[in-house]
Amino acid sequence: MRPSGRNFNELRKVSIETGFSHHAEGSALIRMGGTEVLCTASVEGKVPGFMRGQGEGWITAEYGMLPRATHTRGDREAARGKQSGRTQEIQRLIGRALRAVVDRKAMGEITVTLDCDVLNADGGTRCAAITGAYVALALAFRKLRSNNVIKAIPFTGQVAAVSCGIFQGNPVLDLDYTEDSAADADANFILTQGGGIVEIQATAEKSTFDDASFQALLSLARQGTAELFAAQKAALG
Amino acid sequence: MRPSGRNFNELRKVSIETGFSHHAEGSALIRMGGTEVLCTASVEGKVPGFMRGQGEGWITAEYGMLPRATHTRGDREAARGKQSGRTQEIQRLIGRALRAVVDRKAMGEITVTLDCDVLNADGGTRCAAITGAYVALALAFRKLRSNNVIKAIPFTGQVAAVSCGIFQGNPVLDLDYTEDSAADADANFILTQGGGIVEIQATAEKSTFDDASFQALLSLARQGTAELFAAQKAALG
Amino acid sequence: MRPSGRNFNELRKVSIETGFSHHAEGSALIRMGGTEVLCTASVEGKVPGFMRGQGEGWITAEYGMLPRATHTRGDREAARGKQSGRTQEIQRLIGRALRAVVDRKAMGEITVTLDCDVLNADGGTRCAAITGAYVALALAFRKLRSNNVIKAIPFTGQVAAVSCGIFQGNPVLDLDYTEDSAADADANFILTQGGGIVEIQATAEKSTFDDASFQALLSLARQGTAELFAAQKAALG
Amino acid sequence: MRPSGRNFNELRKVSIETGFSHHAEGSALIRMGGTEVLCTASVEGKVPGFMRGQGEGWITAEYGMLPRATHTRGDREAARGKQSGRTQEIQRLIGRALRAVVDRKAMGEITVTLDCDVLNADGGTRCAAITGAYVALALAFRKLRSNNVIKAIPFTGQVAAVSCGIFQGNPVLDLDYTEDSAADADANFILTQGGGIVEIQATAEKSTFDDASFQALLSLARQGTAELFAAQKAALG
Amino acid sequence: MRPSGRNFNELRKVSIETGFSHHAEGSALIRMGGTEVLCTASVEGKVPGFMRGQGEGWITAEYGMLPRATHTRGDREAARGKQSGRTQEIQRLIGRALRAVVDRKAMGEITVTLDCDVLNADGGTRCAAITGAYVALALAFRKLRSNNVIKAIPFTGQVAAVSCGIFQGNPVLDLDYTEDSAADADANFILTQGGGIVEIQATAEKSTFDDASFQALLSLARQGTAELFAAQKAALG
Amino acid sequence: MRPSGRNFNELRKVSIETGFSHHAEGSALIRMGGTEVLCTASVEGKVPGFMRGQGEGWITAEYGMLPRATHTRGDREAARGKQSGRTQEIQRLIGRALRAVVDRKAMGEITVTLDCDVLNADGGTRCAAITGAYVALALAFRKLRSNNVIKAIPFTGQVAAVSCGIFQGNPVLDLDYTEDSAADADANFILTQGGGIVEIQATAEKSTFDDASFQALLSLARQGTAELFAAQKAALG
Repeated sequence: MRPSGRNFNELRKVSIETGFSHHAEGSALIRMGGTEVLCTASVEGKVPGFMRGQGEGWITAEYGMLPRATHTRGDREAARGKQSGRTQEIQRLIGRALRAVVDRKAMGEITVTLDCDVLNADGGTRCAAITGAYVALALAFRKLRSNNVIKAIPFTGQVAAVSCGIFQGNPVLDLDYTEDSAADADANFILTQGGGIVEIQATAEKSTFDDASFQALLSLARQGTAELFAAQKAALG
Repeated sequence: MRPSGRNFNELRKVSIETGFSHHAEGSALIRMGGTEVLCTASVEGKVPGFMRGQGEGWITAEYGMLPRATHTRGDREAARGKQSGRTQEIQRLIGRALRAVVDRKAMGEITVTLDCDVLNADGGTRCAAITGAYVALALAFRKLRSNNVIKAIPFTGQVAAVSCGIFQGNPVLDLDYTEDSAADADANFILTQGGGIVEIQATAEKSTFDDASFQALLSLARQGTAELFAAQKAALG
Repeated sequence: MRPSGRNFNELRKVSIETGFSHHAEGSALIRMGGTEVLCTASVEGKVPGFMRGQGEGWITAEYGMLPRATHTRGDREAARGKQSGRTQEIQRLIGRALRAVVDRKAMGEITVTLDCDVLNADGGTRCAAITGAYVALALAFRKLRSNNVIKAIPFTGQVAAVSCGIFQGNPVLDLDYTEDSAADADANFILTQGGGIVEIQATAEKSTFDDASFQALLSLARQGTAELFAAQKAALG
Repeated sequence: MRPSGRNFNELRKVSIETGFSHHAEGSALIRMGGTEVLCTASVEGKVPGFMRGQGEGWITAEYGMLPRATHTRGDREAARGKQSGRTQEIQRLIGRALRAVVDRKAMGEITVTLDCDVLNADGGTRCAAITGAYVALALAFRKLRSNNVIKAIPFTGQVAAVSCGIFQGNPVLDLDYTEDSAADADANFILTQGGGIVEIQATAEKSTFDDASFQALLSLARQGTAELFAAQKAALG
Repeated sequence: MRPSGRNFNELRKVSIETGFSHHAEGSALIRMGGTEVLCTASVEGKVPGFMRGQGEGWITAEYGMLPRATHTRGDREAARGKQSGRTQEIQRLIGRALRAVVDRKAMGEITVTLDCDVLNADGGTRCAAITGAYVALALAFRKLRSNNVIKAIPFTGQVAAVSCGIFQGNPVLDLDYTEDSAADADANFILTQGGGIVEIQATAEKSTFDDASFQALLSLARQGTAELFAAQKAALG
Repeated sequence: MRPSGRNFNELRKVSIETGFSHHAEGSALIRMGGTEVLCTASVEGKVPGFMRGQGEGWITAEYGMLPRATHTRGDREAARGKQSGRTQEIQRLIGRALRAVVDRKAMGEITVTLDCDVLNADGGTRCAAITGAYVALALAFRKLRSNNVIKAIPFTGQVAAVSCGIFQGNPVLDLDYTEDSAADADANFILTQGGGIVEIQATAEKSTFDDASFQALLSLARQGTAELFAAQKAALG
């Protein structure tokens, strides 16, 4: 029995609200149960120095958490003067995930920055951020196309992410905070609609796990992302 | 004629939504027109080192702006590794404003941190932050009282803030971004319900101004804060 | 009765010594009682990147305090690796104050940096810094004119600053440290000779105050700055 | 055909030299082809603040690369004033990997810090670091046991790591730099001798990959780590 | 012929003014020609953590230069966020120099911090700082003795410093900025009155030099410090 | 009697191994007894901004110590976020030492960075770094000449460094850690083969010393560097 009463292969309630941010070229406020992440896509008409003159675009991400998104208040990273290792790891992951489904040559030399800020946290924030960032990026691409900056939407695939884990010995889909903090193992799967793997991060927490368990988690992730792809499509109209 | 069509002494539409943050002891999402600030109050059962053993509580504030709260994306302060002078100035101001209406001896040795994060910006964010932080703090005090941590709500007054400015030669209430960036002068007034002044910051932008103009701005601020006091009360039920 | 025996509307002894710094284009060592601030003006033949090509000059300020300018030694900000919020607030204020009385188009694309370093502190250092910086800037302008870099002195007004406060219930002029640390409220007024307001920062410390008290402080500030304008003129010969 | 002429399931030449560091409680200089990492284990008789009083030990890792370990010189992180996101990600990974095979209750309240410094880099430095750190840690545990600080060696398993990737369409074992920079996908596997998974990080580089390819990489990793477990045992005598 | 017209073994005009700082336990404003350094001694009734419980005192130094102490304005180290290598080197040198002539056991567990801030620079600032810091420290010791914190002045010697160099082929005493920037070699000598060497730092600038030249510089330094010892005594009355 | 049993004028066993670094243009792993420093020379085809267009090359150095090069583990400077004053002092010294024996006009506008990383420490690391860096630089110069980047090896002299000290009242050559931490005084001598002085840093530790003692140390250093010049030549073949 899961603490939330959910079935082992049941996602939390998902909603994706577009337009929450007034100024961004694209924005999506994604809610997965109690986890809420505001994803914005900001377009800039140039690329970073190390990429100039190559005729390719760039997609990058930054991640943050409001100090009181969590049960007890965390330090504000801006006040402490540096981003934690965890924050940097997550924002690098988000950037890689989105770049994996974009034809950057088709973008031209522009940069899209995806800011993913956690307003409320209940586990799975990095996966929610990736799933929401895809929507924000899609909206920004549409705006660029309608402004004739790009000719076609340069996506090469649709990407979403979900966490799975082994909780009290059983593989379960979409861990919330209560499950996550007590899991034997957890894994984040970033997958594409056609069955591709973009990134897998699987970690033993309480104990190591075997290949069969891993396989079960991957299957759950395929089920979960199928629902997330549908939610993304619905949000994009 | 103001760009928004508002009367010279007309506030923008104000709303204060409580409970937006799931975990904070108190929270208020304040909207003044297109400006949206999430204010949370977090309680910790001790005071900073420099205050220990004095039997008094402490109230402090931190301020941030999501990178894409603004028309063009701003740097993320956590990524840049330091808070700007402007950010520090604002968070010090918010802290002073709330401390001015609290009997800290009556709090006992606890700390309340007020986090004010701008989700969308359209001018007047520091004033909105103060007005919203009062509500978040009030909710936290109620929770502390119902938990018997404090005996009575330790407020000594009710505080709210509003900006006024001289726009195209005329004193106006509650500048939005368009007015703010073109104003001759602007001023932030932090006032209490009984007619007290907590803080005034008046600054010439395009040209200096005289004592009579200053007096007109103060009058407008008294009108504006009267409405804000009512909105705070309504939000607190 | 004031601790120093001064009358309620009496400034401390003011002196402004020019030329203390051997190398600066302009310098003024201002003494207001026990407060001593060395102000230097340094000219550079270009403007910061964000201002290039607009045909305007730039004036900026930095503020520091020697570690043992105060009763007990403070941390050296260079050793601690960052400037405090207070320091940044003050140096931003000094910069705004001086820019308010300069026609920056008439300067051409040069930068003047005003360094205000407190050698001895006894309250009112930011106000002394502004009053002294005006003199340092005036000397630098004279040098630029005599070198034919500018055709005319680009001041549009004369600026000085003074603090006032409510001490033991009474409005008084030019708080020293003893008064400042016990004041009910204090305010810094940055005013021009013709009656203009450049900036007002009024803050309740022990208790809020009403509009009439504020008016009394402003009147005192007008008296005080009248004397400071005279002292600036005397120093400039 | 691999650039190095190796078979698809062939490791580079592995050697592990103990005692390179004169002072450390345990040290191992691991070489995997042209990659050379010096791993040292340093023991301290207490745990970090957040763990005190729980009767458990702590194992943590730090990672660095000499500036000229690489083809072109990289910035020295100490001079730049911060560790890159990549460095932090790697050192967090090393720490997790070793903690996964240690019974920390059996350690008592001591800390072991594993420093992994890359002297020469040719791909796979994080995996080499983990494999070498296991040996350094084992030596430190032996020393602690012979000094009667611990009663028994607190390992719960043996851990090693290896990278695999899809190079020119084929799964291959133990990527060197040339392969790594041209791979379609790469994955780091941290595995235990009994068939357990400690951590998997699989990333699409040039294109996404499917579940069968992933399975092939995992098989290669099982073969590779079998050889590494033998090399560790040989080094430990 | 020296640019200043001085004889090869002639110091610049030296003056040492005590009491410039209002609050410090001891202070000395030393002038050597155009070089002016304000040295203050601040006493704190405890020692740093690494020295506690050993019954010894601690003497440390910090060094700074006002941004416009020099011909062209230098960056403010507090604004840049770190002290330069040069600054750290100098302040470590000053601390060692003074510790070399103090019996720290006789001090008891107190700390004296010597702040040496350059108000105007014309070469030789580190040597002037050491010579002035001795006077500031002596005054602080006197105050501690008259307050019965210490029984006797804990100096074991008298220390002063002077630079010498090879300018246009000739050994000269007390380089000013013009000479310093063109010298073939320069050396800083920190010497005690009884003929002791505390520290020597000799550096080839334009060309290496031989043992005889070094000997000539040391002789000049003995002459120069003899005069500085007298100036220190005069300042101390 | 010295703790190591060495004669008062006896160096520790010296060896210099070239080619330890796979990628650097020149590298030398120097061992002086238990002190081991890896020195690499990295060439870049441009000079820093402040030197551009002058037709001269630049030589700079960076210094680091692996955290467990020492008896007890030291903080990793990259993790702490800044280099210590000691590190900066040493790397500035290494850079000056090598620049003193190079004709930088003959280099053309290229930069050589000498990285000196201490793998094992037993006293005298900065001297070993200088002696080893000379060899690394010589190898890089040879490579540049064979690539026709420079016409001739631009050395103007051969440089090496050694520490001497007064240990239990006697002058001794090449202090190891045990001697260094108990010495009355120590000095680092950077000398050239023809009898030139590049830099001397002599410091009283336990007590001041006189001119005769200093002379004895300089004599020992001449003997020691004579052996080091021979070792450098042998390593360079």
